[in-house]
Order: sequence, then structure tokens, then C-alpha cells
Amino acid sequence: MTSGPSAGASDRLGLLIVGLGGAVGSTVAAGLERIRQGSADRTGLPLADLTGAGLAPYDAIEVAGWDLAPDDLAAATARHRVLPPELLADLHRPLTAIRPWAATGNRAFCRNVDGPNRITANSHLGAVERIRQDIRDHAERTGIARLVMVNLASVESWPDDTAAFTTPERFERALADNDPAIGPAMLYAYAAIREGIPYGNFTPSLAADIPALAALAQARGVPVAGKDGKTGQTFLKTVLAPAFRDRALHVDGWFSTNILGNNDGLALDDPASLSSKLKTKGSVLDDILGYRVEDHVVHIHYYRPRGDDKEAWDNIDVSGFLGQRMQIKVNFLCKDSILAAPLVIEIARCLDLAQRRGEAGAQPQLGLFFKSPATRDRTPPEHDFFRQQHALMGWLSGQA
Amino acid sequence: MTSGPSAGASDRLGLLIVGLGGAVGSTVAAGLERIRQGSADRTGLPLADLTGAGLAPYDAIEVAGWDLAPDDLAAATARHRVLPPELLADLHRPLTAIRPWAATGNRAFCRNVDGPNRITANSHLGAVERIRQDIRDHAERTGIARLVMVNLASVESWPDDTAAFTTPERFERALADNDPAIGPAMLYAYAAIREGIPYGNFTPSLAADIPALAALAQARGVPVAGKDGKTGQTFLKTVLAPAFRDRALHVDGWFSTNILGNNDGLALDDPASLSSKLKTKGSVLDDILGYRVEDHVVHIHYYRPRGDDKEAWDNIDVSGFLGQRMQIKVNFLCKDSILAAPLVIEIARCLDLAQRRGEAGAQPQLGLFFKSPATRDRTPPEHDFFRQQHALMGWLSGQA
Amino acid sequence: MTSGPSAGASDRLGLLIVGLGGAVGSTVAAGLERIRQGSADRTGLPLADLTGAGLAPYDAIEVAGWDLAPDDLAAATARHRVLPPELLADLHRPLTAIRPWAATGNRAFCRNVDGPNRITANSHLGAVERIRQDIRDHAERTGIARLVMVNLASVESWPDDTAAFTTPERFERALADNDPAIGPAMLYAYAAIREGIPYGNFTPSLAADIPALAALAQARGVPVAGKDGKTGQTFLKTVLAPAFRDRALHVDGWFSTNILGNNDGLALDDPASLSSKLKTKGSVLDDILGYRVEDHVVHIHYYRPRGDDKEAWDNIDVSGFLGQRMQIKVNFLCKDSILAAPLVIEIARCLDLAQRRGEAGAQPQLGLFFKSPATRDRTPPEHDFFRQQHALMGWLSGQA
Amino acid sequence: MTSGPSAGASDRLGLLIVGLGGAVGSTVAAGLERIRQGSADRTGLPLADLTGAGLAPYDAIEVAGWDLAPDDLAAATARHRVLPPELLADLHRPLTAIRPWAATGNRAFCRNVDGPNRITANSHLGAVERIRQDIRDHAERTGIARLVMVNLASVESWPDDTAAFTTPERFERALADNDPAIGPAMLYAYAAIREGIPYGNFTPSLAADIPALAALAQARGVPVAGKDGKTGQTFLKTVLAPAFRDRALHVDGWFSTNILGNNDGLALDDPASLSSKLKTKGSVLDDILGYRVEDHVVHIHYYRPRGDDKEAWDNIDVSGFLGQRMQIKVNFLCKDSILAAPLVIEIARCLDLAQRRGEAGAQPQLGLFFKSPATRDRTPPEHDFFRQQHALMGWLSGQA
Repeated sequence: MTSGPSAGASDRLGLLIVGLGGAVGSTVAAGLERIRQGSADRTGLPLADLTGAGLAPYDAIEVAGWDLAPDDLAAATARHRVLPPELLADLHRPLTAIRPWAATGNRAFCRNVDGPNRITANSHLGAVERIRQDIRDHAERTGIARLVMVNLASVESWPDDTAAFTTPERFERALADNDPAIGPAMLYAYAAIREGIPYGNFTPSLAADIPALAALAQARGVPVAGKDGKTGQTFLKTVLAPAFRDRALHVDGWFSTNILGNNDGLALDDPASLSSKLKTKGSVLDDILGYRVEDHVVHIHYYRPRGDDKEAWDNIDVSGFLGQRMQIKVNFLCKDSILAAPLVIEIARCLDLAQRRGEAGAQPQLGLFFKSPATRDRTPPEHDFFRQQHALMGWLSGQA
Repeated sequence: MTSGPSAGASDRLGLLIVGLGGAVGSTVAAGLERIRQGSADRTGLPLADLTGAGLAPYDAIEVAGWDLAPDDLAAATARHRVLPPELLADLHRPLTAIRPWAATGNRAFCRNVDGPNRITANSHLGAVERIRQDIRDHAERTGIARLVMVNLASVESWPDDTAAFTTPERFERALADNDPAIGPAMLYAYAAIREGIPYGNFTPSLAADIPALAALAQARGVPVAGKDGKTGQTFLKTVLAPAFRDRALHVDGWFSTNILGNNDGLALDDPASLSSKLKTKGSVLDDILGYRVEDHVVHIHYYRPRGDDKEAWDNIDVSGFLGQRMQIKVNFLCKDSILAAPLVIEIARCLDLAQRRGEAGAQPQLGLFFKSPATRDRTPPEHDFFRQQHALMGWLSGQA
Repeated sequence: MTSGPSAGASDRLGLLIVGLGGAVGSTVAAGLERIRQGSADRTGLPLADLTGAGLAPYDAIEVAGWDLAPDDLAAATARHRVLPPELLADLHRPLTAIRPWAATGNRAFCRNVDGPNRITANSHLGAVERIRQDIRDHAERTGIARLVMVNLASVESWPDDTAAFTTPERFERALADNDPAIGPAMLYAYAAIREGIPYGNFTPSLAADIPALAALAQARGVPVAGKDGKTGQTFLKTVLAPAFRDRALHVDGWFSTNILGNNDGLALDDPASLSSKLKTKGSVLDDILGYRVEDHVVHIHYYRPRGDDKEAWDNIDVSGFLGQRMQIKVNFLCKDSILAAPLVIEIARCLDLAQRRGEAGAQPQLGLFFKSPATRDRTPPEHDFFRQQHALMGWLSGQA
Repeated sequence: MTSGPSAGASDRLGLLIVGLGGAVGSTVAAGLERIRQGSADRTGLPLADLTGAGLAPYDAIEVAGWDLAPDDLAAATARHRVLPPELLADLHRPLTAIRPWAATGNRAFCRNVDGPNRITANSHLGAVERIRQDIRDHAERTGIARLVMVNLASVESWPDDTAAFTTPERFERALADNDPAIGPAMLYAYAAIREGIPYGNFTPSLAADIPALAALAQARGVPVAGKDGKTGQTFLKTVLAPAFRDRALHVDGWFSTNILGNNDGLALDDPASLSSKLKTKGSVLDDILGYRVEDHVVHIHYYRPRGDDKEAWDNIDVSGFLGQRMQIKVNFLCKDSILAAPLVIEIARCLDLAQRRGEAGAQPQLGLFFKSPATRDRTPPEHDFFRQQHALMGWLSGQA
């Protein structure tokens, strides 16, 4: 494992991914490998041009992690068909060398996605211990001192709210009692926080954002960020809505349909999982516009012909001067994992920087990466993409 | 002419429109009349919520102006079909009372649009004198102390660059010589500046932005702004491009087609006029993105079935992480005059405020209203909509 | 009630509409009234150019019928906003004169739509008798000899299949027993058949197409047709699919979304009613293409901003030569009732002609008007729009 | 050169392509090679399911031809990027063996496309003789008895109409005089006819459809067909327009934009060549609808990011019942050569069959393959896709 000129031994950053073998996780790994092989292309990496902020260089990031599917990442990238065979050919050897560790899953939380590479713990605490041991083993084996965990696993359904989520003490008691309200995402988040490793949640699942874990992260000095990566449709929504607001065009309705055919789509075909997703998509518009859009409709449909090529169709009905009505229709033919992977990388770099700066708990300045940005002290989140961008730039330049 | 509770006699603002009987001009008049009749609807007026900035109240604005068509504004609004008959019924009487003054046209500059309500001056200076006399007569007749002129006339072709445009002195000499490079828009702009009236250019025609007139405005303490109102497609372009920049998505190509069937479309069917329009649309993308988009294509087509319902179809090709390609397609079914009219009103209010604040020459803080924002001292313009919004808000709050 | 030059007294055709006050029913009435007032515009009426086939002239058709809402049709057309106020102004008086009779509804079959103008029968047979009496009273009062009934009421959920639907005898026994499987649409269809009146079903509800009623219609010499009017998305689907078939383009998937905000949309927001609708939309593609399209997805969503302006967005994934994939996207901004109303009128004229020609039972040559065309003897229906058109033209020219 | 089980030695059909190395020509060659290698996939080949009509089997077709670019077809397919590398890998050896003969070009007819593989004839008759010699050499070398020529070269500008095009005698005199009105497409067509080889014109260039060559073909017993392959937008236009006609929806306007980035697009960037193309696209709508569509607008734009992935955006404005307006928007993301190549193959098979059936001159039953179908005796062409399909099926079944 060589490192490029810009990454000294002490600069190495370990990126631990929950769901490493998925479409996004394997694309993250492939992209970082390509950079390490010398590619100068930084397209899609939003913070590539920043220098002096102290972010880890891309070629210093080394990927490992867990997955319910045991395939090595060469097999995984081939299966997901996100990247063309030509591009993968050169990466075959290093990707073959990355093989996910056995993961913790729970079919009660995610009905449509499962796999054989599964931890055989029969208690919450057993699973947590196994995850922590994986982390410690990895650190020791590789000698990497700085680690970050990012969750890319399939979306879990949300449990009912429970007192167990309110404080660290109650949460730890519920852990010991194997409380069925605690899902895999929380186990990973808890393990990360206890190991002192920053944690980012790119999924809509409940994890470090429950008050119990947010407080624990704060108390233990661990930065956390989430949740639900803002990639395609919601990204554009938070770009367009501020423009309608600033032009005083009233949004009468916004109808959003998504079709996608990857595992993410399959998971969302379970109504319980879909519901988690829609919750994180929901309030974005109203928060930006400052009024309630009565007819904001969001649908996500599994549609196999698309594979990873997600497509969003949005119809926006606006009223302008003298109540006259207009329509804007946006059709985004995107590649889900291509949009997501570079954000995952930037989240990891920012969390690592936050830790080095001594920051702890929720990191609201990372809000532009998420559909449902975590805040502190119940502050309402900022969803306006450009204000989020402004906030992050300020933080990176050391002004915030 | 009564004024609402918020507009005292001394608050009255006279808005003088070149092209008053057009689709936009008559919609401006109808909208202001409606507000004066008590309508509380401020949809589409971007600065309606601002208080304390010192902008003139909407119900204090009184419209007059010039047009090549002699119809009163009740006839004009009926002809343009921008507003539904129900809405116009209540406005019939006040709109009938507004009848445009005879205008200065020049078929050498705008081949496809002409009309009988034409000034019979046979020299540049004669036309200028007639315009200035119209202004003085109007001020005297109405007792309105504060006036602003906005150009909404059909787009003119751009003359070849000439030394006459470089300094006030040369321009005035060329005026006296009836230099054919001087078009109607410049005559109106010159008249306004000489009368000490702020001038806004909502068209792509060359006017107060030629160095000669910009310098004259500066010297005489008159604020000017322009050019080419940013309403539909370019508005969205300056909203989306910053988002692609901030997400590091590379724009490989942007294909923009517009179809519209109003007079504006007819004027643009003349290639010479179209060329003026495309010039103001052109560099927007490159300036925002910071690199040259080789395949930026913009077309405007006259297509009668649409009338004033302009439609834009944009296809954007972007590359993301690892060079993978995606597409965004935006279809904007807009109403040209409905988007334009409230911007015209806000431009007038801002120019009036600028004058009261003692500012002169080009007003770059009004850039968000224009496709090709005027700047001072050859500074490159800011096209990013959100930075423009930020700049205007700062100026209005007195910080800039 | 005068009739135009082309309609003699004996030519009068009475069109009895179930759901007369709905968006489609009131548009039918308004359109026929306009023709009677002398309008020569026949746009949207597919059989307007045919002469010699013996179809009733449009100005000979007189509308009456039932509705749960008691409003006269002037009020109904104003409420539905399908037609602009200018156009309705001239029709106000005759539309005011048309007032729906009290209707039979059943909230067990259609949860989201109800109204106060309701028959107070407390048995199936009582309701049937009341409907038949309405018909006989109308015939006597107006002196119209030829009547046709068309169902335009809100879609009903489909009951479970039951032996009661298999033969006329069993059906009549179930009627007498107030079998809850029998819904309002069947009661109207039964009443029509018993009165010897042709019956057309423009809704997806089960009615004359159950074997019991089809057999009864055949036995009593009454022509019937249905079901579910083919207006927007399915119409285009049956136009495009034959073209893909004939060019050997393989349809890998077809994703169809509909948004509409009228009563029809509200009714379809009840999953039970939606299910009826989707059943009639389902097999169209497979039947035309000759193979099963695994990923044929159809959604209908209630979205208020649209009102009657239904919008369909279709995404079609096809494979061509050497397995290469392409996409066709169709966005239909239609007006549901504007597409439906003329088809209702043509169905009525054709059913009347069929009766005069002595034909009885299901009329497959009218298949082009329906999403789920009735056939005889379990023949599979033809869905290809152009073959349907060919079949109807043949029948009208007397060749079939 | 082995042949599959269905193709005996005497069945071999030689397909001679003008423009063999282009995107379409090389795709034709690749596809036929794939079938010969045993692929059973017939997607996109419209006549694949027909048996008994006497069409040549696909695996009996052997490709050769001319091109201004000297690359062998392995290099050509790689350059055009129509087919993915995986698919081409297996075809590399046979495609390498196909190398185009030197071609006749004329920059006066096609400004934007040229190449070094050029015949060095300095007279029309010299070029014709060289083409005929190529054909005779090929027949002798391969022993193939049945040949067909199809023109796939870049579109040529149309010369002014001239008396030279009216009769065979005048044409031959003009040939001898090196009349500059005679373009390369005519030279190839003339050579084919003189060699007794059926000729199909897939381009919009003037060729066998001028009266002189149509008469010559008729006189010499040679079937000819053309012109301008109906692949994407026009194909859909001739599918949709009949549906609007049959539903009596009045087409108020049809705005068609095409963007494409292959050589075809580059050629069309020359206004003279574009004009040929638009001529063949023009009257389609009016002919199908039976009235003149005032606002039928067609644009073709060269837009590099697309390469061979042509995209069409159509906006159709229709009026329905009571003059109410609706819109249909169709966005076709197609692959130009993937749509074209199988049609070229079917044209060749049909022309060969026509010759064996003893038919001569223009073959109107092949109209469904062309935008501007040739007819005999000035009969207006049929453009309705489904009537064209019906006509071809009748001819193939021996009924016509």
C-alpha cells in the first residue's frame, strides 16, 4: 500500500464503511484507488480545489469496512455496474484485495436486503463488541492512527420513539436489555463513538442523531454528522427552492417522482423503509420557503430497467405576479452512486478535520451533504444549499 | 389618482416606460393598478417583504410612457392576453385612462416591429428634445417630483462599435450629426440622463451601458442599471450553474431552446436583433463556472401557438465522479410578462432609492435583475444568482 | 328546446348520463349546447366528418341524467373550471335549465365521493325501479323516442367475484336479496337494459360487462359498450406500443405516472377504487406487444394544483439493435374532461346506431373508446389503436 | 467466409454500402457479423419474424463498400463509439478484414465531411466507371451473384433543379459534360442501375429519385427505394400524427428540435446540407393530417456532448373539444445508428426480393423506411406509419 507524494505515513486516514460492498461503498473504494494510481481527475469532489484547510489528501485515504455480502470489491463493482468495465480493468487487483468484514444486520429493520456475511452475535452488546474489535484489529494491523466511520448500509425502518433514545444512560441500559427498538445503525454508531471515531450517517436510518447518541458523542469529544446524503432530487430541490423564494414565486405544489433499480430501490420497496426516507425528504421545502407547501408529494419507485441510473422527474407549480401560474419540470437522469461517492469521501475528510480541531457532537456546518442535517440544541436545520455552502466554506477557512 | 394609506403626496413615484403598450409594460400598469385598488397579493414581487429600506410603496407608483402603438392600456392588455379577462374587468376604467405618448422608433434597428404612434422628428436632437419635453410636461401636469425611466421596447440590433460611444463629448457630437449608429434606446437613455432621471434598461439593446452614457450618468449624478431582464431561462441558468460548480459537476454542454410567440419573439426572428439577445446570454455560464463550456448553445425561436407563454427547454450534460456522465433537463413553461413585470417595478423602486441615496452611474447591486449586469470600471459582472441576491440585500440594508 | 336544421323531431336522441354534474358530464352538456347554438367547431369529435353512416346529428342530442350533487349544470361547469368563463357566458341560460335527478350512490363502493342528491330507496330493486321511472318520465315529458345511457360516475371499487354475476337469473335473485356485491353501476346498467336502452360504461366500474348483464343485454336486444374511457395516457400507450412492436424495439420497462386534481383523482385516492382503475390499464401493453413487460408500472396520484388539467409522464425504456438501450419520455399536459367529453358523445351516437341496426350485447367495434374493451365469447380484446380505428371505420361504412 | 445453416452458397447476398465506414455502415457490418457468429438476438430488425416471404436470411448477407475514410471496420466501430467495447471485442477479427474501397466525394455538395480515401477520377464518367469496376471486381472475387447498393454517405446539398435531371438521355449527356449539378449520390445510383443492382437511398441526398434515374431504373428493370431513413423523430411523428387525426385533435403547432454530435450532425451544420434534410422532413405532418400546420418548426443542431446519442425534443400543441388547448412533449433519447442499421439491412433484403420478383423502378411499399418515400407517377406518398406497415406486410405476403 504505497502512498502518493502528498500523503506521508502519519497522514493516513482510514475510512471504515458500513455497507462497503454496496454500489456507493464500492464506488468510493474504486475512486480512491484510481486517485492513488495517479489519476488527476477530481470531477465531482467538491472540496478538491481547497488548499490550506488541512483536509486529508485523497490519496491518503484507505478504505475498509463491513458488508452482509462477502464479495471482494472487484466482484462488487462488477456486479453493481456503476462503472464501465474499461475503467475497472486497471483497478482489478487492488479492489480484489479489499474484502468486507462480517456485518450486523437485522431483518426487522430492513426486510428486502440480506446476505450471508453476517456476525453471529446474539446480543446487542455482543454485536457492539465485535464491531469495536474489528476496528481495533484494523488499526493495529494497518498502523493507521486516524479513522472515520461512514454508514452506507441499506435504509432501516424507523422504530417507534422510546425513552431508550433520550439519554446515554437509558440507551446503554436498553443495549444491555437487547431492546428491539435498537437497530444495526445505532450499534455501529455507538461502537464508533465509544472507540472515539467520528461517525457520518449517509443513510436515512436513525443512528447518531438520537439524543442519547448525540449527547454521548458530545461528551466523549467525537464529531458526528448526518443524515441521509443529499445527492440528486433533494439536492436540486434545495437549489431551486431558494431561487423561487428570492423571486417571490409562490410554490403551489411540487410533485417528485424517483425511479431507480438498485438495491437502494429494492430496500425502499418495503414501505417501512420508504417511510424513513420520506421523513428525511419531507420538510426541506417548507423550511426553505417559510410556508407550508400543501401539495408536496414525493414518490420513490423501484424500477429495474434503470439499475443504478436513478431518474427523478419533478413537476413544480408556481404562481407569479397577479396570481398567474407557471410550471417548471426537471428531469434528472443521474447515477446515484456517482453523486454519492464523492460526498462520502468529503464527509470523511471533514469529520477527520473536525476531530483534529477538537470539535465534538453534531457538525451542522456539514449540512450541505445531508437531506436532514443534524443540528445542536434543537436549532432548526438550514436546508438552503447556498447558505449551507457558505457555512461550510466559512468553517473550512477557519472563520466559523 | 388617489393614493393608498402608505403613499403620501410627496411619496409619489412616476414610472416612465419606453414601450408602455407592450406585453410587459401593460402588465406593469395593470398590476400596479390592482394594488392601488386594494389587492394585498404581492406574489412575484421580490422586495415586497422588505420594510425600512426606504423603497417607494407600490401604491405610490404611477405609470406613463411611450409606445409606437397608440392603444390605451385597456386595449393593450386585452390584445396581449397575458392576463385573464376576469382579472382585467375591474381594471378597465383606470387602464383606459393610460394612453401612450408618441414614440421614437427606427426600423434600421428593429425590423419586425413598428407602429403608427410615431414621433415626427427628423433628427436625433429633435427626438431627444421631444422626449425631454414629454417628461417635463408629465412632471408639470401630475406634480410628481420623482421619476424613473425603464426601457421595455423591442430589442434593437447592435450597431458596430464606434468612437461615438466612447465619451460624452463624442456622443453629443454624433447626436448632432445624426450618426446612424445611434439607436432609439440611446436617445431615450440620453434624454433621461439629461433630465436627471434614473434609467433602467430591461432590453438587450445598447443604451446607457455604452461608455459615453455611463460616464455622462456618473458625471450628472444619475443612477442607471441594465441590461436585459433576467426572467426565465437565464434566471434558472444562474441558479443551477452555481450548484454544479459547488458540487464539482463538470458542465460538458448546455443546450438551451426557447419558444415564444409574442412580439418579443417576432422581434428576435430578425437575426440582427437575435444577435443582441444572444450576446447578453452568452458568457453567463463561463463566468459562473470558471471555465469555458465549449458546447453552450442557445436558441430562441418564434413559435406562434405560445403567445406570451414562453417555454424553455434546457438540456445539461454534466460529468461527475470518475468521469461518469449525467443529464439534467429543465422545461420551464413560463409567462414571460408575468416574470418580467414585477422585476421592472422593483428596478424602478431601487433606482429611485439609489438616486435619493445620492448614488450615480452603473448600479451593480441591481445585477440580479439583468442577464448582462452593468458594472463600473470594467469589473467583470457577478452572474451567480445567490451572490447577486446577497449583494442586493446588503445594499438595501444599508451595508453596502 | 329548439333543434337545428339537420335534426328533425323524430331524430332527437336523449343522452342519459349517470354522473351528469361531474366534470365530464357537464362538459358534454356544454359542448352539445354550444353546437345547438350554432357553433360549427367540431374539434375533438372523431366522427364529425363522417356522413352517410346514419349517426345522429350532434344538434339532435339532448342531455339529462342523475348526480349526487344537486347543482344545475351552469353551477357545475363553473365549479369544475374545465371551460373558461368567456365560453360559458353564452351557455348560462340553457345549462341552468339542466338539473340532475337524484342519484343512487353507495359509499361502500366509492369512499371519497358523496353528495346530498340521493335516492332514498332502501333496496336494490327499489333503486332500480326509481331509475327506470326516471327514464320513463323523461321519455314521456320530452317525447324523445331514442335514448342511450352512459355511465360517467366516480369509479367504484370492484367487489369480489361472485356467482351472482354469472347469469341473468342469479343476478336477479341477488338483486332481490340485496346482495352487497352489487354496486350502483350495475343497478343503472340493469335498469337501462330492462328499459331497452343501450348502455355505455365510460368508468372502470363493473357494470354491463359482468357475464350476467352481458347475457341479459344480448337476450333483450340491447347493445352495450365499455369500459373505462381511453383518453390520455392509455390512448398514447396504445398508439406508441404498436410502433415499437412494428419496429421490433423491445420494451424493457414502461413507467407511467399521472397527476390530476379533479374528483376523479380524489376517488382514485381510495386504494380500492384505484385498484379498479389499474386493472383496466394493466394488460394493454402485453396484449399489443405479444410478450410480458416485466416492468410496467402505473401510478395515479391526486395532486390538487392541477384541477382538471391531468398530466401524464411516461418513461419508456426500449432496447434496439444489438441490445442497445434507448429512452422515450412522453409528457402529456392534457385536460381530462376535454378529451373525454367528445368520446362520450360519439359512444352515444354509435350505440344508438347499433340499436337501430338491430345489434345487441357487447359492441367490440367500439373498442377504441375504451381502456378495457368488451368482447364477445371471451375473445381477447384488440388494444392497438389503429386496428381499433380500422375496425370502427369498417363497421360505420357498413362493411363489418 | 462461412455461412450459417440457413444460408446456402447460392443464397449469398452482397450489400454494397456507400459510406461503409460511417457510424451506420459500420454498425450494419458489426450486427451482421454478430449474427453470423451465432447470435440469436433479432431485436430491432422489424422483419425478423417473417418466414416464407422469401427474404434473404441475415447470415447470408455480406458487406462491402466505399468510404472517404480508409479505416478498416474494426477501427471505424471503435471510433464511432456506437457499440460498447465488450460487444466489439468478439467482432474484432472479421471487422478488421473489411476495408472500404476509395470513394467519390465532392466538397461542393458536402462541405463539412471529407477524407483521404478518395477516387482520383477527374470526370463524372471516370468516377462512374471506377464504381462499376469496383462492383464487378467484388462480384468476381467473392462469387456473390446477388448484390444490392445502399447509400449511407453524408448528406449532400441539393443542386438547383435542372433539365439534366428530367430524362435518362439528358442525364447521360450531362454526365459526359461533367455538369456540376450532378453530385456523388447520383453517380453511385447511376452506376448501380447500369450494373442492374437495386439501389436504396438512406440519405436525404438527391439520387435515384430524380426523374431521369427513376425512369432509367424502370427501363432497366432495377428496383430502387428512398429516400432518407425514417429513424427517430420523424418515425414518432408519423406514429403520433395519425392518432391526433383519428381523435380529431387539431395540431396548432409542432416544434421539433434535434441535437446530435456525430458526423451526420456535423454535415448538417452546413446550412446547405441541412436544407436537404429539412425538405425531406417537411411535408410529413400536413400530408397525414390533411391540413397545413402553420407552425411546424424543425431544427437540427450539432451538439458534441451527445456523439451518436441523438436526442429529439418535440413539443406539440393541440386543440381539443371546444377549442381547449393541450400539449404533448416527447423526448426521445435515441441512438441514431442503432435505429438506422437494422432498417438498412431490411431495405437491402426487400430490394433483393423485389428484384427476384421482377419488380422495377420506385418501390412505394418500402415507404415506412423513409422520411420521403418515393412513389410512381407522381402519386403523393403515404406517410402514416401504420398504413405504411400495412402496405409492406401485404406486399411481403404476396398480396400486393
